[in-house]
Amino acid sequence: VTETAEPVSAPPATPHQVPAGMTAPAAPGPLADAVGEVRRRTAAEEARTIVAGTNLATLATLSDDGHPWGSFVAYGTLADGSPVLCLSTLAEHGRNLPRDPRASLVVAANPGDNDPLDSGRVTLAGAAVVPTGLELEDARDAYRTAVQDAAAFMDYGDFTIYVLQVDRVRWVGGFGRMDSTDASAYHAAEPDPVAGAAPYAVAHLNDDHEDALLDMARALAGYTDATAVRCTAADRYGLDLVVHTPRGRAQTRVGFAAPISAPNGLRSATVELARRSRALLDA
Amino acid sequence: VTETAEPVSAPPATPHQVPAGMTAPAAPGPLADAVGEVRRRTAAEEARTIVAGTNLATLATLSDDGHPWGSFVAYGTLADGSPVLCLSTLAEHGRNLPRDPRASLVVAANPGDNDPLDSGRVTLAGAAVVPTGLELEDARDAYRTAVQDAAAFMDYGDFTIYVLQVDRVRWVGGFGRMDSTDASAYHAAEPDPVAGAAPYAVAHLNDDHEDALLDMARALAGYTDATAVRCTAADRYGLDLVVHTPRGRAQTRVGFAAPISAPNGLRSATVELARRSRALLDA
Repeated sequence: VTETAEPVSAPPATPHQVPAGMTAPAAPGPLADAVGEVRRRTAAEEARTIVAGTNLATLATLSDDGHPWGSFVAYGTLADGSPVLCLSTLAEHGRNLPRDPRASLVVAANPGDNDPLDSGRVTLAGAAVVPTGLELEDARDAYRTAVQDAAAFMDYGDFTIYVLQVDRVRWVGGFGRMDSTDASAYHAAEPDPVAGAAPYAVAHLNDDHEDALLDMARALAGYTDATAVRCTAADRYGLDLVVHTPRGRAQTRVGFAAPISAPNGLRSATVELARRSRALLDA
Repeated sequence: VTETAEPVSAPPATPHQVPAGMTAPAAPGPLADAVGEVRRRTAAEEARTIVAGTNLATLATLSDDGHPWGSFVAYGTLADGSPVLCLSTLAEHGRNLPRDPRASLVVAANPGDNDPLDSGRVTLAGAAVVPTGLELEDARDAYRTAVQDAAAFMDYGDFTIYVLQVDRVRWVGGFGRMDSTDASAYHAAEPDPVAGAAPYAVAHLNDDHEDALLDMARALAGYTDATAVRCTAADRYGLDLVVHTPRGRAQTRVGFAAPISAPNGLRSATVELARRSRALLDA
């Protein structure tokens, strides 16, 4: 088995039922203790971030015979993360909801260059209600802000504005990364402010700063024998890394000194991480 | 109202309930009769083409309380267009289907540079059944062919292969373009063989051959006063065009001499269309 043929394991052991004779993924652990706090986005933060990242989703409603009916929709988002839909009774979903408000909305993150199956998505389940008064104005504003040309159709008589009142949230981050959360945690969480800037930052780190990534893996993540490192994701709390060692490949993570709160905060947080790593290695 | 501010109407009059005071979209008609047959893909062909174009979809199933549950899935496709799923009981959808096989699958076409809301998507509704014997082998092959790394998990004990037996098909092509079809038409239809090559062909026509597109609009589509033309889509039967005239903008279409049956057939069919148009204008 060559090094590149070895799978990169997800951090927890697989809960899947692996058949006899098949090898479960395994990866080498760190050789030293990790340094510093390593925080990850919660499921609620992941969900809010995914929902904030696009305006396209798939809606599941119930047809008149009780069959689950999926359809493609655009959505806006209220400040608390509640999705806003604008649906026509000319479409099946727009006839389903007045009869039964139960619905779920699936939003997938843009996978970029990653495997879409190993990328984030979220299901928000709840009841689609028709807002009135100030809530209707708020919902209309949210929809108009999010959906290009909404003004051209949202006042048509066959369209109705709905707010999905979220009861249940299921986040899947990719292989082996998933969790559920509830409505209050979902509404209280913030979308990650650096989500929009992260793909460029990741590409830049990999293209021009692998030396800094190596320092981080060796000094902070405990992979003292790292020979090559690739950054796979960046978020407000830190960087996900794939570390190559003579013992094989592993996934690990390094944490920023403090959570980033501004969309342009990735550069200074990463510089701090690189300096701290270099100082530890030089000490 | 300037010309560029005028909406490009969908071919049929809008069935939407337009409020008093709002103008329904309108566009100028052709000044001469169209020449030649103008065929469009059927809803079944559109559906088969969209399903053949990707391996990612959203599945709607029923949770134990009857709530519609949407989730992101990968799929393969049998020769007759039936989708193949491979689902784990670790995921909610994999626990839902053994209890209630009713499901629908939503597949969206890659919108490219177009508005995703004005792009194709399809809902396939039916029952997800567990194949056996030769049908299971066929389904496993289809899934493995379509889904990268499927071999790494499809034999895990918590995964089950399902085939969605399609009962009902709803295609939406974009604003004002939609139709339903049934299982027999869906299974009998072919995916468009030129779907993969079409985006490049459209870009090339717009970049380098607007003169030929103008000839087509003037000679074949009856827009004798066309001043500029843009191709918006190409398929095995013809080209969709947006025509600019002193009277405003309009959508129209020109048809190939015969349906294309090979993936590389767009060039020669388009050349024939350009020559025929030029000959008519020179006559």
